[in-house]
Amino acid sequence: MAVTDIATRTWDHNWRLDPIVRSLLDTDFYKLLMLQMIRHLHGDVDATFRLINRSTSVRLADVIDEDELRAQLDHARGLRFAKKELIWLAGNSFYGQERMFSGDFIRWLADFQLPPYKLHRVDGPFELTFDGPWTHTTMWEIPALAIVNELRARAALRDKGRFALDVLYARGKAKLWDKVERLRELPDLVISDFGTRRRHGFLWQRWCVEALKEGLGGRFIGSSNVLLAMDNDLEAIGTNAHELPMVMAALAQDDAGVAAAPYRVLEEWQAHYGGNLLVVLPDAFGTAAFLRDAPAWVADWTGFRPDSAPPIEAGEQIIAFWQRHGRDPRDKLLIFSDGMDVDSIERVYHHFHGRVRMSFGWGTNLTNDFRGCDPDGAAGLEPISLVAKVTRANGRPAVKLSDNPAKATGEATEIARYLRIFGADGRAQSAVDV
Amino acid sequence: MAVTDIATRTWDHNWRLDPIVRSLLDTDFYKLLMLQMIRHLHGDVDATFRLINRSTSVRLADVIDEDELRAQLDHARGLRFAKKELIWLAGNSFYGQERMFSGDFIRWLADFQLPPYKLHRVDGPFELTFDGPWTHTTMWEIPALAIVNELRARAALRDKGRFALDVLYARGKAKLWDKVERLRELPDLVISDFGTRRRHGFLWQRWCVEALKEGLGGRFIGSSNVLLAMDNDLEAIGTNAHELPMVMAALAQDDAGVAAAPYRVLEEWQAHYGGNLLVVLPDAFGTAAFLRDAPAWVADWTGFRPDSAPPIEAGEQIIAFWQRHGRDPRDKLLIFSDGMDVDSIERVYHHFHGRVRMSFGWGTNLTNDFRGCDPDGAAGLEPISLVAKVTRANGRPAVKLSDNPAKATGEATEIARYLRIFGADGRAQSAVDV
Repeated sequence: MAVTDIATRTWDHNWRLDPIVRSLLDTDFYKLLMLQMIRHLHGDVDATFRLINRSTSVRLADVIDEDELRAQLDHARGLRFAKKELIWLAGNSFYGQERMFSGDFIRWLADFQLPPYKLHRVDGPFELTFDGPWTHTTMWEIPALAIVNELRARAALRDKGRFALDVLYARGKAKLWDKVERLRELPDLVISDFGTRRRHGFLWQRWCVEALKEGLGGRFIGSSNVLLAMDNDLEAIGTNAHELPMVMAALAQDDAGVAAAPYRVLEEWQAHYGGNLLVVLPDAFGTAAFLRDAPAWVADWTGFRPDSAPPIEAGEQIIAFWQRHGRDPRDKLLIFSDGMDVDSIERVYHHFHGRVRMSFGWGTNLTNDFRGCDPDGAAGLEPISLVAKVTRANGRPAVKLSDNPAKATGEATEIARYLRIFGADGRAQSAVDV
Repeated sequence: MAVTDIATRTWDHNWRLDPIVRSLLDTDFYKLLMLQMIRHLHGDVDATFRLINRSTSVRLADVIDEDELRAQLDHARGLRFAKKELIWLAGNSFYGQERMFSGDFIRWLADFQLPPYKLHRVDGPFELTFDGPWTHTTMWEIPALAIVNELRARAALRDKGRFALDVLYARGKAKLWDKVERLRELPDLVISDFGTRRRHGFLWQRWCVEALKEGLGGRFIGSSNVLLAMDNDLEAIGTNAHELPMVMAALAQDDAGVAAAPYRVLEEWQAHYGGNLLVVLPDAFGTAAFLRDAPAWVADWTGFRPDSAPPIEAGEQIIAFWQRHGRDPRDKLLIFSDGMDVDSIERVYHHFHGRVRMSFGWGTNLTNDFRGCDPDGAAGLEPISLVAKVTRANGRPAVKLSDNPAKATGEATEIARYLRIFGADGRAQSAVDV
């Protein structure tokens, strides 16, 4: 007897849309932490987010069909948090803490939906922007990135035969498992999945997370993806992002306010969260400037997440900062999350092992590494450096300097102004692959 | 909506047997060619076949459950040729010839079933033997080997988790495709699947055959597996096996009859088949002896299949034979089929390229190579050298000397007698991996 589920097959005949984002929990955990604080303290701020493709050699508008993009974005706008999802957010403990999210915030989420988007294309690349209350536009970052990345992957695979797809995914799985076997050699490894935004696709990210859970056991501490964390009983991992200091600086009335913004963000954050959530993201306007001007209490925080300077240099700077303030780095935490892959994880692990607690956020090279896997040898699957950045807050321009000028965003005159305020110490251009 | 075919799932709950051999066409093509001739000329001969495990370090009886083995063998005994299979055998052309199989033979096949088997186990290895008319016992060779090999693979995989299986097959596919990409570099390659008997499993062989069809295009000329050839519209590939000279020699009345048996087989064969089916298998009693004593007309045959001597040495011997008889080797064919893999295929290809027509029969290392693929690093999947050999004909002992003493079969006194008859020229021991 040949078994075919005829109802399923008939549904497939009439295929309309294979939704990329199917849950509002299919986002990074830090968005929810930030959102609770933004709503509490900055509910009146408008913020504009914009999709920025730093890989200029890849012309997304040539690859992705505009109607398909609209259909996926529209589908995401139709989503609401499911009741069981809100119950889980309310009842689960995060970073060891019960009731991380207030009842008031959970009730507010019940009515949440993604706000309208603006999609323009005039003789060139897509312009995809999100205007409106910061409490709403901020939530587009991850689904917008996941949608565009997965549409690009689908386009690259569109004309492939059934067999080529089979080989492609077999190689992808074999490749990831070889990485898992190398990581197993690091006994004190602490690693988590940070790969939602630039993943090949949701199902592939799910497979990658399952692979790390199976292969690394307790060394794999969880996923930034809230839905995958819930579904797999993993820890949801994440703290905060550049948008906080970027918006605070944009809203500042003068240069002194801009200079103070990074520390004001930390004050706001520590009024909401504690313990392992006290992780500084120091590079929005340059790590060297941040450490130079940091008040002494910043050394009380649990850790730092260097995200754009070379990881060993950045780690050494931060360890020196702790030592200047009389702290033992072995009590402190460094989280490495900038384009890491097995080679750099091994290098950084061995460099700092025993000197500081370490954790790795493994992103694009976990969930979107099909390099060398395509049996047709075609391009189109190599990951690109796509970000969704806040560009304006209450109409005022927002800026990110970063430790790597290739990752800076903002208008040129504003970047120049910020460089005058913060200086350019330690900034060094390097290629941004992912 | 979660889609599960409840009828299928319920069937699965009540799982009884997953048959390994599901069709009498799931055998090697040469069995049918030989069977037609055996029935025509030797319908009154009884022949005993016995399963012989040359990999003595692997104790099959410790791995395979006797009840499961009986259930699979019994299932195979219940099979009959399906009507559409006989229609295909009658209507298809093989090696460019219409009506390869006579109507009389096809009608006889309609009633064919595998004869009884004997399975004993007394404080040691299984003894699996097939007694009865040669026309019936000969047909057990391939299904018996396929069943035992697949049961061994199933046993090795029994306790594996869902994820380990996923990684295992992903690596297996990636590994095979890497081989395909290397073989693609050989522009004049002619290769076929010879991997039925020692395959990992039927479904895996099917995948491997599809991979070669997809990846090598016209360089992949077909499969020895008749069912896969039919299902995939490929050529069925194969000629004849050692059992023909082994039975002829066993039946001989004296030493002179034994010495003449290899050539008598060829005379019988060329009375039935022609063209590319005129391929000599020279090594049953040693290739050097065969070539030394061969009548001149043997040089008229299309090709040779060296099957136990080192392939380059054997090929050179055969080319020298053709040259002694004034033939141009470029008009002749060498088929290499003894434990080939990509390394040896490349080596042999480059050695003989331009000097002789070549074809490769790729067996165990095509359809059963999971070396290094098991994420648990466990053993149990490495291929073993399992054969089913004729041991008696009409009650008289049968012998194979082979070019490699490790591949010899038969009683010691008979082997000694055959060595006196044929000599030991050119025989050299080498390890038998597969």
